[in-house]
Amino acid sequence: MLRAQGRAVHQCDSGWVPVFVDQEQSISLMSVGFLLESPDEAVVWRGPKKNALIKQFVADVAWGQLDYLVVDTPPGTSDEHMAAVEALRPYSPLGALVVTTPQAVSVGDVRRELTFCRKTGLQVVGVVENMSGFVCPHCAECTNVFSRGGGEVLASLAGVPFLGSVPLDPELTRSLEEGQDFIRDFPKSPAFPALFSIAQKVMSEAPARLS
Amino acid sequence: MLRAQGRAVHQCDSGWVPVFVDQEQSISLMSVGFLLESPDEAVVWRGPKKNALIKQFVADVAWGQLDYLVVDTPPGTSDEHMAAVEALRPYSPLGALVVTTPQAVSVGDVRRELTFCRKTGLQVVGVVENMSGFVCPHCAECTNVFSRGGGEVLASLAGVPFLGSVPLDPELTRSLEEGQDFIRDFPKSPAFPALFSIAQKVMSEAPARLS
Repeated sequence: MLRAQGRAVHQCDSGWVPVFVDQEQSISLMSVGFLLESPDEAVVWRGPKKNALIKQFVADVAWGQLDYLVVDTPPGTSDEHMAAVEALRPYSPLGALVVTTPQAVSVGDVRRELTFCRKTGLQVVGVVENMSGFVCPHCAECTNVFSRGGGEVLASLAGVPFLGSVPLDPELTRSLEEGQDFIRDFPKSPAFPALFSIAQKVMSEAPARLS
Repeated sequence: MLRAQGRAVHQCDSGWVPVFVDQEQSISLMSVGFLLESPDEAVVWRGPKKNALIKQFVADVAWGQLDYLVVDTPPGTSDEHMAAVEALRPYSPLGALVVTTPQAVSVGDVRRELTFCRKTGLQVVGVVENMSGFVCPHCAECTNVFSRGGGEVLASLAGVPFLGSVPLDPELTRSLEEGQDFIRDFPKSPAFPALFSIAQKVMSEAPARLS
């Protein structure tokens, strides 16, 4: 998505140097993908080994000064989530951004993730509903491919902010497939105002703590 | 999806009795969901505890005589997958059915799952592409919401059968949301022939071993 595949991670005195994805060095990235020899290689690791690497990604990477550190986790409430919460606790994380799709089956899973946040004392910045309706590019009619409204109901039940819905959007997919800059290249896409408004709400709910 | 939420698991002399989802007892089901007190409860378990439960679900459930035992795993190649492969090895499992969505990002993840199958000696029954195009119910035009063709390319690169593509289908979502019988209630839905043909191919690639 960020055209960073195949890039290498180097060592410096203060730890691993993250991969910079743009010339301005405004986004730096660390991923287990950079440590593998081939993109086909499977990370067949049990919990303890994953936990150790997640801790290293927080503590042993020379992140420098950041506005936001975004940790993209798999779905669920397992080793990865516990390890990330534990590794980040000393830094008082701003909170969890919880993403669901509209249908009841996903909302059920995500309810359990909200319980996890409560149990581990992680604040919930808000809920985002993804894959929320599809505007046909041929006839402009909207279809709720995956039911609708689940994210908003979930946020209201859990008493956390609902940050918005992102529609299914072939232009967003294409942009991610080709590593394009969505903000620059697709300002008229239906997902654009949705993502822009969510980003603004996140920044106002959880402003960066500049030191 | 199977209208089984809230059902209880009982004990008998030969182990846990699975939950039967229809009167004919043609489908029996076991899930950690049946063992929780509330549907909101998060399973915040590390690997070893999950591994132990997966082994119990194979060995300590009174499954009786089955045509097929389907294990629905989360995405990835981690504890759950290793535990399932190890627990099932004594029964010579027929193989893995690998599901991807069409876009390059998912195909990359699923390539690693195929590597996992090779490493663990698990045969791959085939690859299925899900969320493969959307036929607008208003104008009947098809849009490839998530790119296209990734599943077929992946199967061909890995030298395993490609079993078919399932389109995005609001009727399939509705059926799953409401626990309806899709085969009985939606025979004209666009996902119906796709799922039917995939099921037939699975049964011919990996016929049930009746004892």
